[in-house]
Amino acid sequence: MSQVDSGSPVGVALIGSGRMGAYHGETLAQRLPGARLVAVADPAPGTAEKLAAGWGAPAAYTDPAQAFGDPAVEAVVIAAPARFHTDLIVAAAQAGKSVFCEKPAALSLGDLDRAIDAVRAAAVVLQVGFNRRFAPDWAAARALLDRGVLGTPRLLRSVTRDPGGFDPSWVPADTIFNETLIHDFDTLRFLNPGAEAVEVYATADALVEPAWKDRGLLDTAVVTVKFDNGATGIAEACFQAAYGYDVRGEVFGSGGMATMGDGRATGMVFSGATGRAIDTARSDQELLAGAYVAELAAFVEAVRTGGPAPVGGEDARAALAIAKAAARSVRENRPVTIAEVAR
Amino acid sequence: MSQVDSGSPVGVALIGSGRMGAYHGETLAQRLPGARLVAVADPAPGTAEKLAAGWGAPAAYTDPAQAFGDPAVEAVVIAAPARFHTDLIVAAAQAGKSVFCEKPAALSLGDLDRAIDAVRAAAVVLQVGFNRRFAPDWAAARALLDRGVLGTPRLLRSVTRDPGGFDPSWVPADTIFNETLIHDFDTLRFLNPGAEAVEVYATADALVEPAWKDRGLLDTAVVTVKFDNGATGIAEACFQAAYGYDVRGEVFGSGGMATMGDGRATGMVFSGATGRAIDTARSDQELLAGAYVAELAAFVEAVRTGGPAPVGGEDARAALAIAKAAARSVRENRPVTIAEVAR
Amino acid sequence: MSQVDSGSPVGVALIGSGRMGAYHGETLAQRLPGARLVAVADPAPGTAEKLAAGWGAPAAYTDPAQAFGDPAVEAVVIAAPARFHTDLIVAAAQAGKSVFCEKPAALSLGDLDRAIDAVRAAAVVLQVGFNRRFAPDWAAARALLDRGVLGTPRLLRSVTRDPGGFDPSWVPADTIFNETLIHDFDTLRFLNPGAEAVEVYATADALVEPAWKDRGLLDTAVVTVKFDNGATGIAEACFQAAYGYDVRGEVFGSGGMATMGDGRATGMVFSGATGRAIDTARSDQELLAGAYVAELAAFVEAVRTGGPAPVGGEDARAALAIAKAAARSVRENRPVTIAEVAR
Amino acid sequence: MSQVDSGSPVGVALIGSGRMGAYHGETLAQRLPGARLVAVADPAPGTAEKLAAGWGAPAAYTDPAQAFGDPAVEAVVIAAPARFHTDLIVAAAQAGKSVFCEKPAALSLGDLDRAIDAVRAAAVVLQVGFNRRFAPDWAAARALLDRGVLGTPRLLRSVTRDPGGFDPSWVPADTIFNETLIHDFDTLRFLNPGAEAVEVYATADALVEPAWKDRGLLDTAVVTVKFDNGATGIAEACFQAAYGYDVRGEVFGSGGMATMGDGRATGMVFSGATGRAIDTARSDQELLAGAYVAELAAFVEAVRTGGPAPVGGEDARAALAIAKAAARSVRENRPVTIAEVAR
Repeated sequence: MSQVDSGSPVGVALIGSGRMGAYHGETLAQRLPGARLVAVADPAPGTAEKLAAGWGAPAAYTDPAQAFGDPAVEAVVIAAPARFHTDLIVAAAQAGKSVFCEKPAALSLGDLDRAIDAVRAAAVVLQVGFNRRFAPDWAAARALLDRGVLGTPRLLRSVTRDPGGFDPSWVPADTIFNETLIHDFDTLRFLNPGAEAVEVYATADALVEPAWKDRGLLDTAVVTVKFDNGATGIAEACFQAAYGYDVRGEVFGSGGMATMGDGRATGMVFSGATGRAIDTARSDQELLAGAYVAELAAFVEAVRTGGPAPVGGEDARAALAIAKAAARSVRENRPVTIAEVAR
Repeated sequence: MSQVDSGSPVGVALIGSGRMGAYHGETLAQRLPGARLVAVADPAPGTAEKLAAGWGAPAAYTDPAQAFGDPAVEAVVIAAPARFHTDLIVAAAQAGKSVFCEKPAALSLGDLDRAIDAVRAAAVVLQVGFNRRFAPDWAAARALLDRGVLGTPRLLRSVTRDPGGFDPSWVPADTIFNETLIHDFDTLRFLNPGAEAVEVYATADALVEPAWKDRGLLDTAVVTVKFDNGATGIAEACFQAAYGYDVRGEVFGSGGMATMGDGRATGMVFSGATGRAIDTARSDQELLAGAYVAELAAFVEAVRTGGPAPVGGEDARAALAIAKAAARSVRENRPVTIAEVAR
Repeated sequence: MSQVDSGSPVGVALIGSGRMGAYHGETLAQRLPGARLVAVADPAPGTAEKLAAGWGAPAAYTDPAQAFGDPAVEAVVIAAPARFHTDLIVAAAQAGKSVFCEKPAALSLGDLDRAIDAVRAAAVVLQVGFNRRFAPDWAAARALLDRGVLGTPRLLRSVTRDPGGFDPSWVPADTIFNETLIHDFDTLRFLNPGAEAVEVYATADALVEPAWKDRGLLDTAVVTVKFDNGATGIAEACFQAAYGYDVRGEVFGSGGMATMGDGRATGMVFSGATGRAIDTARSDQELLAGAYVAELAAFVEAVRTGGPAPVGGEDARAALAIAKAAARSVRENRPVTIAEVAR
Repeated sequence: MSQVDSGSPVGVALIGSGRMGAYHGETLAQRLPGARLVAVADPAPGTAEKLAAGWGAPAAYTDPAQAFGDPAVEAVVIAAPARFHTDLIVAAAQAGKSVFCEKPAALSLGDLDRAIDAVRAAAVVLQVGFNRRFAPDWAAARALLDRGVLGTPRLLRSVTRDPGGFDPSWVPADTIFNETLIHDFDTLRFLNPGAEAVEVYATADALVEPAWKDRGLLDTAVVTVKFDNGATGIAEACFQAAYGYDVRGEVFGSGGMATMGDGRATGMVFSGATGRAIDTARSDQELLAGAYVAELAAFVEAVRTGGPAPVGGEDARAALAIAKAAARSVRENRPVTIAEVAR
């Protein structure tokens, strides 16, 4: 990895500027003094130029290869659709760029191994967008674990519910496992440090959009994950919650329990004619704003110091293996071991 | 069922005066103007006499048959060990007494059918001690369901964690399913009205007392229950929580979510040098005091009016079937249908 | 005081059956095995008879004197309008009946002294309806004080907000001090045990019904109470809160702080399309149900044992003196000492 | 005000680098891409140099005049002791620099007028460090007010409790009013938009350090503020809370109530052997981190756009007038009008 001068901001290119990408671009341009957004790449004509101009980024590209060839770019943030992730990681690494990639880093374990190999060969940093590790509640729970306060984990829970409004025709099969629950699989691992998943059982159904069940779209799922230290984790997801974005967690150990995710936007409580209402976050970007910034700050710091990323390729692989086992469990209606899918 | 004069309290005998029985006895004697505790039966020499004297109950017996033969007794509350429940229900019913029986009403589906048949033949009331239905949070959630506010349930959760301190040598195999999680199985049904369980998958381990695993004692379990309306329920239990008794629930439907069980003893919050602490209940009798009284009030009312009990033999059977499927699922490490166990 | 047989319920007559009286009557008839409602007195034709019949009380009177002459009556619960309280207490005491009187026990300190003297001469029990002392949050805070956990009180707060709907033409002047804030004055004393008020400053206005200000109706008030241990208490009240009945408190001492009154009806939280809502109590009878029963239980117990009431005539006098000083403070726009009003 | 190029960061000098100053310096250097820390001034030998080096600021001065003369400095953040504020504001303004000044902007109304005049003459931006306006809960409550949801304010409350550890010999008389409660006075005004204080009554005592009372040190105070729209606000403060920093607020209007300040560091809740504990903030910098950054971001934006500061000299004057009236009220033990002190 090229030596980075600790005094100047890290030059970062944004690859892909959809909803999440745009947020990352804004963070790199306006919220992270340690980073400098030096390029935006997006295939849609005019998009990169417009965004780059608004953010004061000097370069705009329609082809990510241009960003990989730009000497001002030390690192890239990949927020393109998931099916392109592997090839982008490989190309970036081969160009000597460190990589922050949105989850999932790949859609198959084979692809992921290819990406990990490229990163290793280039000795660049790879961080995966498991943002929940950086959300304050979760970081606080992990701190309690690390201090031994919670003892040995016995039961864990991680929940993701989206606010809905998705277009069923755009959602690939297994998305609930590969793209949504993968956050929860990583969270379960994060909250059970040192343990690894051994067996997975999952149920899933099309309860939001029953008409799409025949085409394989599953929108509601529960996954039971057995770990090698005896703990059981439960991950559950639904693509539509009437009350908005819902991200919660729980870790129960021999020393006590931590619960995470009260869904609050602020601590303000309003009492009015229709009752008393908590001031709640409606979008992931409101709920997880701090985590989205913190994960990029950690990435930039890792690039600057050459240190390892706080959540990297092996973590991505472990979470993807659980996703693969979960999908197979639903198809075969039986518990599936990690060994079966992760050879 | 014998006609009960609506003006005078219902005469009730307590059968079994252990921890839970003693609480029920106190409720019948001191908290329920509609009931009159007319007898206490306990096999331990002197126990029934001492308790009856303290509560002002006119009769004390060492043999429950004496209570069944006492004409002042219109109804009995059975709080003896679970293995005696079936025979006691049958005997009480045959004597024309209405029965409130602590859960589980039986340890096998065959026994339970025998009890249900006896109750039906005698046309007495049978209520089972699924107290959580009477806890304010749960009743409020059910009211939201009944009003349609929560829509169709998609994901449900019910948790029971005991404060520990149990003697492993006294705990029969499958207790976590038959005696602890049976509350949660009933709760999942209560929160998914009209739906029935079709398939069950369970994991369980001995994490509190690992040395007892070989003898079949499982102290920590997670059970996934698939319902015929597509909803999935999760029931989890552990015999030891460092923070005391923990009973919680959640129902997530197309219209929103209700969460139940904040564990508070009161709404008082103390802020001191070691932080801010919620005033929490430490025992089930503190946490569920209202529910314990309310379930007996409902029973006494059912006896008085001859109406059906709010939770009866068929509910007991449905919950026990899930328990049986869960225990088999652990032994065979596969999902087990209700049809397999509940023929 | 006549000796009461500890085995049989205390015979109680209800004097006055308005909103609060009806609740107390129901409690005596149906919620308190230790009490027996033996008579109902109400001047409205037919009212006492109808209520007595419904509650199974043997006697109904239109004149309270009849209840005072009834030998089955050991104690009375006075819930008539405040202006009749003193004479009723005196008459009941002279007839040898113990008295539970709704607050305020009198509208002037002279009247109150007359009532206290009559009670003392007759050696009967007098309890005043300061129910907040019996509400779980407040009792828990007081327990922390008694255990020394909160240290010496420095700042205290007590809030009462009614849900509105009052008829301004029915509300006597100074009602906000004499009938509403009198609860808060007692609460401040309850949370600052051993200390006494020395000076009072109050502001008040007609913000709910500005048109009635000229006629002396004040509907919103803040009262600052200085105590002889240096602590300052704040009592505030408003006759109309858009969100229903609101009763809260706070005591901040050298050891920490306790806050009371989260307004919850249950611990259930509903998350729906319009946000996340706490399940809140809308009426005092929902919010304070437990306290209303507990205060009568304590009274009945005091009558039974001949022991002193937990909150009696001297407490009523201390709270009323604060109310008088507050009313004068508003009129004269200056701090008023307790010594000025309580000679 | 000099035209600022919207594309480049605003050059800011830090004047005074004590506890709060150091935090502001860090924010300017590391948390605000829109600002550039170009100088640090502190009279203690070596301090400015060391801090400037650590933050990468190009200049370090021992005399603030040097910073005022530095052409790279467009704006200054004044965090020197309160008694120097006025002269520093005047000097900065005269040098054409915009000013962010920690509260209080002055210790007398005369001084404050002098500062306001200098700022006006120089046409620079002046913002005062009333950070609570920028804290999320308070901003959310104000948004409800601005949308009309809360109706017309009737009762308001603002609380500040410090964690203690102060050195009594360093605290000037009236500090609790001029430097602590001044936050609360501004908050009451912020939550009662358009209304102004007309009369103030205050009580105060030395309850934390009774031995210092003779020397005029008051450490615990309650201030009642009457507003011209009929609302009453209560501000209370104490220099020592056993549980750490405590900042809360409440606004109750005709449409409902908003409460602010749950003291949480995160939403994580830990349940352990000693109870259930909220994860609470211990320092102001933890509790108000977001507000400290947001107020400087707003200042930098005002400098950049030449727009008015969100909270300026007139707000500082209104809050200081309440502080002056409160101090006089304590000395004279009577309500004091704003007109008396603010001529």
